[in-house]
Amino acid sequence: MTTPLAYNQQHNEQYINELKEFLRISSIGTLRAHDDDTRRAAEWLRQHCLHVGMTRAELMDTPGHPIVYAEWLEAGPHAPTVLVYGHYDVQPVDDPRNEWRSPPFEPVIRDGNIYARGAIDDKGQLFMHLKVFEAVMKTEGRFPVNLKMMFEGEEESGSTNLEPFIRAHLDLLACDVVVISDTSVQGEDSPSIDYGLRGLIYTEILVKGPKTDLHSGFGGTVPNPAQVLAQILAKMHDENGRILVPGFYDDVLELTPEERDALAANPVTEDDWKQQRGVSALWGEPGYTFLERFGARPTLEINGLVSGWTGQGAKTVIAADAMAKVSCRLVPHQDPEVILRSIQDYVAALTPPGIESEVRALGPAAPGVVVPIASPAMQVAREAYTETFGREPIMTRNGGSIPVVSLYQETLGVPVLLLGFGLPDDNLHAPNEKMTLSMFFKGVDTLTRFYQKLPATH
Amino acid sequence: MTTPLAYNQQHNEQYINELKEFLRISSIGTLRAHDDDTRRAAEWLRQHCLHVGMTRAELMDTPGHPIVYAEWLEAGPHAPTVLVYGHYDVQPVDDPRNEWRSPPFEPVIRDGNIYARGAIDDKGQLFMHLKVFEAVMKTEGRFPVNLKMMFEGEEESGSTNLEPFIRAHLDLLACDVVVISDTSVQGEDSPSIDYGLRGLIYTEILVKGPKTDLHSGFGGTVPNPAQVLAQILAKMHDENGRILVPGFYDDVLELTPEERDALAANPVTEDDWKQQRGVSALWGEPGYTFLERFGARPTLEINGLVSGWTGQGAKTVIAADAMAKVSCRLVPHQDPEVILRSIQDYVAALTPPGIESEVRALGPAAPGVVVPIASPAMQVAREAYTETFGREPIMTRNGGSIPVVSLYQETLGVPVLLLGFGLPDDNLHAPNEKMTLSMFFKGVDTLTRFYQKLPATH
Repeated sequence: MTTPLAYNQQHNEQYINELKEFLRISSIGTLRAHDDDTRRAAEWLRQHCLHVGMTRAELMDTPGHPIVYAEWLEAGPHAPTVLVYGHYDVQPVDDPRNEWRSPPFEPVIRDGNIYARGAIDDKGQLFMHLKVFEAVMKTEGRFPVNLKMMFEGEEESGSTNLEPFIRAHLDLLACDVVVISDTSVQGEDSPSIDYGLRGLIYTEILVKGPKTDLHSGFGGTVPNPAQVLAQILAKMHDENGRILVPGFYDDVLELTPEERDALAANPVTEDDWKQQRGVSALWGEPGYTFLERFGARPTLEINGLVSGWTGQGAKTVIAADAMAKVSCRLVPHQDPEVILRSIQDYVAALTPPGIESEVRALGPAAPGVVVPIASPAMQVAREAYTETFGREPIMTRNGGSIPVVSLYQETLGVPVLLLGFGLPDDNLHAPNEKMTLSMFFKGVDTLTRFYQKLPATH
Repeated sequence: MTTPLAYNQQHNEQYINELKEFLRISSIGTLRAHDDDTRRAAEWLRQHCLHVGMTRAELMDTPGHPIVYAEWLEAGPHAPTVLVYGHYDVQPVDDPRNEWRSPPFEPVIRDGNIYARGAIDDKGQLFMHLKVFEAVMKTEGRFPVNLKMMFEGEEESGSTNLEPFIRAHLDLLACDVVVISDTSVQGEDSPSIDYGLRGLIYTEILVKGPKTDLHSGFGGTVPNPAQVLAQILAKMHDENGRILVPGFYDDVLELTPEERDALAANPVTEDDWKQQRGVSALWGEPGYTFLERFGARPTLEINGLVSGWTGQGAKTVIAADAMAKVSCRLVPHQDPEVILRSIQDYVAALTPPGIESEVRALGPAAPGVVVPIASPAMQVAREAYTETFGREPIMTRNGGSIPVVSLYQETLGVPVLLLGFGLPDDNLHAPNEKMTLSMFFKGVDTLTRFYQKLPATH
């Protein structure tokens, strides 16, 4: 008798070849030019769900990219039901400096890693669940839990259509626990589980001055939108890194002494962090350690800037407008709507005569969340990590955002587990995104153990 | 007997058709992709010089785009020699908002204006001199002065190769006066001559942080290059618009009370200026009128900004770098080298740990100049304007820069006259650049009169 874990080992090559096929589809959901590719990725997933033995798999339309929904519900009414969420859209590959060592949609394996856009975020990780299902079904003929899967195509552009979809399908999606594999561990030998996530608001700040671009010979007589934008952005933080938007910190849930102790127990050092991030110095709000700032303190960051002439050489122009993309990571209990309005009011107050400004929200906002650490499902997950990695996972708070986590908690009223298998140097949202192959197989094994242990808690 | 002025009137249509041919050549000198077009424009000019009767016309190589040199030296040794300078390269047509009402290199006439990139800056204006020469030669058989013309293809990218060329050809270029038509009058009914110009330095400020772009979920722990750039740029001016670069104003030649009175006599009002520039409020250094700031005070302006994600939608990224194009208009007696070093030192001092910065000069620098107002050639020019426009030209200081003016003054030791015929709403360096046709013909008539009167001063 082959066990599921043995099946995983015997099918390494097949798993990776199938994943490569999936990674070749350039499903950049945020770009209209890639709409067809994005749909192709959804269709590929639907077919693969049927291929591994799910009894139902379909594309469900939304006003944007479709949701792939699949299920296998034959574990019986007494077995728990798990809803797996993932996303098949990927980040843009925009890279002015052409730093991709191989084309982003031609997956290649170098030094035990698979390089491609989406390798870790999130195609490679959602694919683990499909392979776990395949391995268990092929070896044991049945799966220990009722399994529902839903994969969206708009996570990288703000999951615009997800909330109405979930609210319209509460019965279809009903479950005992939601599992999401879209995060990282601290290191291959340092497993960890994120129990907290930051929320997000994303905005575009538009600044307009002269009706058309002007020759910069007129400089010194008219307001310059690029300069005004720089001045507005410079007033977002004080010189130490504390955010100056009025009221920004009012509702922030402060860390308890116990939580600060737990975060301080994390073996990651400032030097590790510098090396992993590729920076020579850290930065941030005074009074908090870098791990506290990362997971439990809110931010305001510039994600993009553009105005005037940006090509080679000199163009002596005062541009008619300037734009910044600015986003905030939020923590409990900041209200995204309140923060957005505070930024809008602040920017309006900082806008001088002769200039018009506007702060536009892009995509829906999400609050920060802390996932219940004491739930039985979380205990089972910790055991599964411990058995696979040979050591207890560290419990961490993650600075990133998965807006759907709070959404599932709110709408379905169940715990949401973040069982991720990325590594800190995976270059997600950057050139040369990769997944380490050994982490892929550890993820598959961990999830196999998780699903097998879960019924005992029910 | 037809006079030159009558010939001009009879050949309106021919003049404009020839100019259209010239404007169709997309000679964007600063972009390598347009190198062939830029050379075609030079070759077109060379042939046109021969066509109108210049006795010599050739392309003279430089390490960049060629200089077109042409001459007619048969006025005799006792007649004055005039060197005309112009440029056949044009600004880029980069326009993210697609505001060109007609394609920039397909000249069209609408409402008495000819619209095309280069229509006024500088193809349309340098072409006036060729038509004046043609008209006088066709009607009188000889030209009143010895005429040399040189046209470069690198004015919009900093005239990189002009200075060595001039220094290597001092005998060839020897003359009594240099004439440049590359400026504007205040209005069609309000002729003016610029007797002062600002200088220019143009820089690129590069700010680098993390080795690669990072997911903004790491925000709050690492320095963000876009934010650092905004903070550096915001410290370039105080809240009133005075430049904060240490030493920036040290060598500025202050306006005399007489000059302030002369500038105050200019009938242009703040409202006129707002309307012409398309702004709802003026801005600038306190203590000076807008015309003083325009012509006689130095500036520091952002000409371009770029960092991170600038496409549609949201990308949650902390970019590895950020860049600004920043230029200064200089006035006598600021030394461009000293100002550049002051900016470099200031930016270095403002750069925080974890960030590297660099300030690179683009193109050669030029000091501000004041052109001798009392020279006999200037008096003749004022008479020519008065006769053509029906009123005395106002003497003005222009905020733009023509770096070659100081270069010619220095190298050839002769006065440089700026006899320009643009209008304030010509959209130079912007979408929908145009030349008003009636100004073209007034320019041709004014220059015809100027050349005819000039020998009397000699």
